[in-house]
Amino acid sequence: MGGARGAVGGYWSAGVARVAGGGGQWRGAGEASPPPGSRLGATAGAHRPPRLLPPRPAEEVAKPEQGQVVTPWDVAGGADGAIDYDKITKEFGCSLISDALIERIEKCTGVRAHHFLRRGIFFAHRELEKIVEAHEQGKKFYLYTGRGPSSEALHLGHLVPFMFTKWLQDAFKCPLVIQLTDDEKCLWRDLKYEEALRLARENARDIIACGFDPEKTFIFSDFEYMGGPFYVNVNKIAGLVTFNQARGIFGFDGSANIGKIGFPAVQAAPAFPDSFPHMFGTNKKLRCLIPCAIDQDPYFRMTRDVAPRCGYVKCSLIESRFFPALQGESGKMSASDTTSAVFVTDTPKQIKSKINKYAFSGGQATVEEHREKGANLAVDVPWKYLNFFMEDDERLQQIGREYESGQMLTGEIKAALIEVLQGICKTHQENRAAVTDEVLQRFMTPRQMDNLWG
Amino acid sequence: MGGARGAVGGYWSAGVARVAGGGGQWRGAGEASPPPGSRLGATAGAHRPPRLLPPRPAEEVAKPEQGQVVTPWDVAGGADGAIDYDKITKEFGCSLISDALIERIEKCTGVRAHHFLRRGIFFAHRELEKIVEAHEQGKKFYLYTGRGPSSEALHLGHLVPFMFTKWLQDAFKCPLVIQLTDDEKCLWRDLKYEEALRLARENARDIIACGFDPEKTFIFSDFEYMGGPFYVNVNKIAGLVTFNQARGIFGFDGSANIGKIGFPAVQAAPAFPDSFPHMFGTNKKLRCLIPCAIDQDPYFRMTRDVAPRCGYVKCSLIESRFFPALQGESGKMSASDTTSAVFVTDTPKQIKSKINKYAFSGGQATVEEHREKGANLAVDVPWKYLNFFMEDDERLQQIGREYESGQMLTGEIKAALIEVLQGICKTHQENRAAVTDEVLQRFMTPRQMDNLWG
Repeated sequence: MGGARGAVGGYWSAGVARVAGGGGQWRGAGEASPPPGSRLGATAGAHRPPRLLPPRPAEEVAKPEQGQVVTPWDVAGGADGAIDYDKITKEFGCSLISDALIERIEKCTGVRAHHFLRRGIFFAHRELEKIVEAHEQGKKFYLYTGRGPSSEALHLGHLVPFMFTKWLQDAFKCPLVIQLTDDEKCLWRDLKYEEALRLARENARDIIACGFDPEKTFIFSDFEYMGGPFYVNVNKIAGLVTFNQARGIFGFDGSANIGKIGFPAVQAAPAFPDSFPHMFGTNKKLRCLIPCAIDQDPYFRMTRDVAPRCGYVKCSLIESRFFPALQGESGKMSASDTTSAVFVTDTPKQIKSKINKYAFSGGQATVEEHREKGANLAVDVPWKYLNFFMEDDERLQQIGREYESGQMLTGEIKAALIEVLQGICKTHQENRAAVTDEVLQRFMTPRQMDNLWG
Repeated sequence: MGGARGAVGGYWSAGVARVAGGGGQWRGAGEASPPPGSRLGATAGAHRPPRLLPPRPAEEVAKPEQGQVVTPWDVAGGADGAIDYDKITKEFGCSLISDALIERIEKCTGVRAHHFLRRGIFFAHRELEKIVEAHEQGKKFYLYTGRGPSSEALHLGHLVPFMFTKWLQDAFKCPLVIQLTDDEKCLWRDLKYEEALRLARENARDIIACGFDPEKTFIFSDFEYMGGPFYVNVNKIAGLVTFNQARGIFGFDGSANIGKIGFPAVQAAPAFPDSFPHMFGTNKKLRCLIPCAIDQDPYFRMTRDVAPRCGYVKCSLIESRFFPALQGESGKMSASDTTSAVFVTDTPKQIKSKINKYAFSGGQATVEEHREKGANLAVDVPWKYLNFFMEDDERLQQIGREYESGQMLTGEIKAALIEVLQGICKTHQENRAAVTDEVLQRFMTPRQMDNLWG
């Protein structure tokens, strides 16, 4: 088969690695499939280590021998199960985010870079420098991200793009639109639309809980918001993309339903500012920055291609790696497998138990061996998760050093992770509980927004 | 090339023959093209003569040797330029309307059948008997028709389906929705959406001028009405039709844009009653009858196929022949060629001049020859037009007899036609002038309609 479509993830995949298992709907037989045993493959970070770790020589890392597959619906690593991010970046034609660009962002915002940026979790981009340049010149832009509401059970990986987007909104003080593609989920997942709409609203509560500014943020369900200027833009875009092009970009074949074939125009349209007249009027030249996982790149490559032909500026992108399953990068996070991920609804006890039981360890089999050889950070899930969620750089570095040298044991790094995750989930649960129907309605109502740029 | 896409017509083609000339966008080279000289080919009526004429033996009529092409975008006759309606009916799999069915309609409505029905202009159907049966049993149904607003200049052919729909509304006292596919025109004609919207509203004025009941009629532009329950139904339908199926039905190939490929779901959705919650609530079982020209049949074949899978009743159809150009059935009516058609905006003088100059005559070259041989009604445009627009059956029959026998001259039948058309255009112009912005707005506002079934 090849790349699997995870039960969570999909469109706006939240940077989730969804590798192996399940039936890949979009890829034919014979395409890249992780071989048996590949679940313990090399880390994704190997090719571009998290910035806080000393770089390791490239030859240490097994290069994928089989082609990996990364599309908006499938993510499958190469022969070793790992995702080769350099390869994706090259194939997609996007750029790596340089340290210089990060420094420039810090300088023009006056805010320290988010650790997702410092640690190379958001690692690639398209024309991010144009956004930074605009900001330096006092020009405006807006943020656009989204989620495909296929599941009520969000896991931590789903929060990654929203945590980062929240930081971007605060740092750049800019408006944000968040698309919930309930329509897409009906086309791909055969959801009933009532259920898709319900999930969209439930997911919106989790998104709001990430702390977005209600004066600057518009969250919309496609089913609810489709129409008028938004539909005009969907129509414009759809008129400029042929089936052959869509097939080339997304791999559609003749058995794809016509809704799927047309859907890329729906995901593209929010990158055109006049899709939101209540926010941006008829301004066609406002820049748009899209934070997303790298697997969403094909949508916006298409969008960028079409934009100038409709009189718009090409959108910029800032793109993240995938968030690994508890079982490691080639594992699959699934809402139906509660042992595969930490969910935002998990209790402290569940978190502790999951991490201790299921988080794949790069530590050695015995304490003696571990003290002698140290941990293999490249495959260690607690270490990867800490890179995502521990904010304190110094403590993270210290943990990395001690764990890699064998001074720290697996139980100890897991304990550190458990503490961090319990804190994140507790805060999220509290924030989510505070999202009343009125708050939800406020975010999701198309409305005059007078303080967009304040 | 093959079938041409006329500059007027297209979607909801208003029963317009759009044959020959122009570049056929949807058909490849080598397909049926009217041969030189075929412009004087046999009449469409030949295979199913207008009901008021005595049937002529089938062998008199040249059978098409080359395949004719009838799709929602192309209409091209066979080798002789004529449309073989029996063949279309058979190929499409719809049924001819029997005299018994017409009588049943008259009986259950208590209204004499419209002359379009009596004369076989609306000649084919799908499950029309189900609608009649429902009406007989006191059950409700609604009407759905539409227009692709590609032109401001409507000709008489454009009025045909609306005249008939108006009659249906009055006879069955039922609600009506009219779709203006401005979105489709942007995809196929490369119109700017502002222009498409403007044309939609201008065309709506002409439609309203046909006399629809504002208490029972909702006219909508796709750009304006897309969204909510309507979009939900578009999405449902699109999810059930594969590209391969759409290619089979509509002839799409890989160079078609993804908007075109998805569009059939937009034309299908109004056949599902809950696309109009302000009219029909959430009723999924209400029947729908669609009056349209026969070339729209593929859309609704697809719609009928999908309906039961979404929990709806299959829509019924009542389908018309094409309205011929002044130059005859193989001519092409075009807004850019004012000599090809009588437009609803024409003055009495223009009408007189056009009919006298351009209406193709089946009369003989000299008065002597005409007196001797009589006229060939099968190719005579004034005769065909009178069948469409002269309401008085007796007078029409008399004209037919006298003209065919040579007793009436071409100039005389043309004079009769001129009088009828001048009357229709004058009335239409007066009615249209009375359509104020407020009236237009009323028809086009989604609104609670309390007198839908009165």
